[in-house]
Amino acid sequence: MALLKDDMAACNRLILDRMQSDVALIPQVAAHIVAAGGKRIRPLLTIAAARLCGYRGDRHVGLAACVEFIHTATLLHDDVVDESALRRGQASANAMFGNQASVLVGDFLFSRAFQVMVADGSLEVLRILSDASAIIAEGEVLQLMTQNDTATTEAQYLAVIEGKTAALFAAATEVGAVVAGEPADRQKALRDFGMSLGVAFQLVDDALDYSADQEALGKTVGDDFREGKITLPVLLAFARGSEEERAFWRRTLEDRDQGDADLARALALMTKHGALKDTIGRARSYADQAIALLEPFPDGAEKRALAAAADFVVERAR
Amino acid sequence: MALLKDDMAACNRLILDRMQSDVALIPQVAAHIVAAGGKRIRPLLTIAAARLCGYRGDRHVGLAACVEFIHTATLLHDDVVDESALRRGQASANAMFGNQASVLVGDFLFSRAFQVMVADGSLEVLRILSDASAIIAEGEVLQLMTQNDTATTEAQYLAVIEGKTAALFAAATEVGAVVAGEPADRQKALRDFGMSLGVAFQLVDDALDYSADQEALGKTVGDDFREGKITLPVLLAFARGSEEERAFWRRTLEDRDQGDADLARALALMTKHGALKDTIGRARSYADQAIALLEPFPDGAEKRALAAAADFVVERAR
Repeated sequence: MALLKDDMAACNRLILDRMQSDVALIPQVAAHIVAAGGKRIRPLLTIAAARLCGYRGDRHVGLAACVEFIHTATLLHDDVVDESALRRGQASANAMFGNQASVLVGDFLFSRAFQVMVADGSLEVLRILSDASAIIAEGEVLQLMTQNDTATTEAQYLAVIEGKTAALFAAATEVGAVVAGEPADRQKALRDFGMSLGVAFQLVDDALDYSADQEALGKTVGDDFREGKITLPVLLAFARGSEEERAFWRRTLEDRDQGDADLARALALMTKHGALKDTIGRARSYADQAIALLEPFPDGAEKRALAAAADFVVERAR
Repeated sequence: MALLKDDMAACNRLILDRMQSDVALIPQVAAHIVAAGGKRIRPLLTIAAARLCGYRGDRHVGLAACVEFIHTATLLHDDVVDESALRRGQASANAMFGNQASVLVGDFLFSRAFQVMVADGSLEVLRILSDASAIIAEGEVLQLMTQNDTATTEAQYLAVIEGKTAALFAAATEVGAVVAGEPADRQKALRDFGMSLGVAFQLVDDALDYSADQEALGKTVGDDFREGKITLPVLLAFARGSEEERAFWRRTLEDRDQGDADLARALALMTKHGALKDTIGRARSYADQAIALLEPFPDGAEKRALAAAADFVVERAR
């Protein structure tokens, strides 16, 4: 764990260093979101995956920073797209600096990630992360297309979360395996681990958006509801609900005709139908699936860290 | 010229092909802006530069498409950032599809460009275009920082336009030279050609924003004025103006207190002080500088095409 701790510290230093620019607003905006206390779970995955595979070099630290830069860029853009006011417990970058700065600093961080990858010199890593970036964008646009549509299927929802969230987790772990020179089947196992963990992560995120204590969440509770995002808790409550309840969901999520009491009603309906409980239950299954994928790898601190990450993703919901 | 025409046709086909996605809104938004009749000047530069250097392969076509994708992504983001309603003579993507789709499809095109570069396989090209992308973002943020500030210097303005515009022109020509395997000094000459041409291009763009006939422009005349962008025509008119005129510029550009007659007054002041004429004159100098940089290269259709591009950039303003 000390090794991972040192690697993560080096990664954090690199993140701070590579977000610098002579154009002062860039590090200002970047620092605002980066320093706000993100969990750094994605770079941790890259680092732990590399070390799990016996990697002894230091390339994984820079590449972990790239993964975090891509993640940060997507957060900046997401908060503009979703008009979010709160992120990581403080004003979102777009609330504080405006949409313009947020779009552009997101573009900078994205570009900077590719510069760091180019300096590292692996076309394979570039392939993995450029593919992930395209898939993230596709997932986000797919989410946009399914917004406000209660006819969205669970399959479409899964496609959204695999794209917008899980793909980067999968890429993070795969990059760790690649720099360590793992054979293809083990690269795939770690990629699949990341993908399953990422799906679990988003399922919990979607449940917490309704059930979390505002203090704990860091984002505004109920943002998904206000935007009419169709997530698993909604899909389950809708499917299990009466005609009258479905009319409620249509009014609030399709027509976006929402009053003050509606969020509380949404939460009550989800509780009634076990929608949140089952969403967390599914997340637990995906996390277990992920942990099972670690089986072929050597036991030790790195494997425990990866399994603990999978547990954390789900347990943070309880 | 037939060769360039065939290459450009191949490039257009590749652009259309690589903008496809199973997520239907993506090609919808991308097609809207791509098909709107952009000049394709940047991919032309890549293609012509490669052919000028005697390149006989076809890699330059895909890389020219990458340059156009990066350009298109920046246009999509710029129009969100600037809240522009018109682009290439039709509704901007953000006006038609919304800011969300525009930010995300921009992200997709950017990622797709990197995927295409990775498939091409050159770390040098990836370095050039990832560096250019970071520089573009820095130029755009610097522009944001100097907005609404009449104390902006000509040096700062030049730094903005070198970053936000000229850097991609420079990268476009440099990539052409690189795929052709040119020695470093000739790569640099073509890079410098692109940089000078890019500065000329933006100077003319900034003049046209005030002086153009709305029909001809494709973008809304006076957008820069409405946003308080500090461009060379403004800097010259401000510097040459009386105290009363400076008070006008401060009211309209710093306070952004604008009435219906102000755009016409701005244009009149610029005309009075020769601000537009001198901006075009400077563009002509940069274009001449660019053409001079072609001197060491073999005469022929490719050289004539590049010189013609430099002339076009300026003459479109007359």
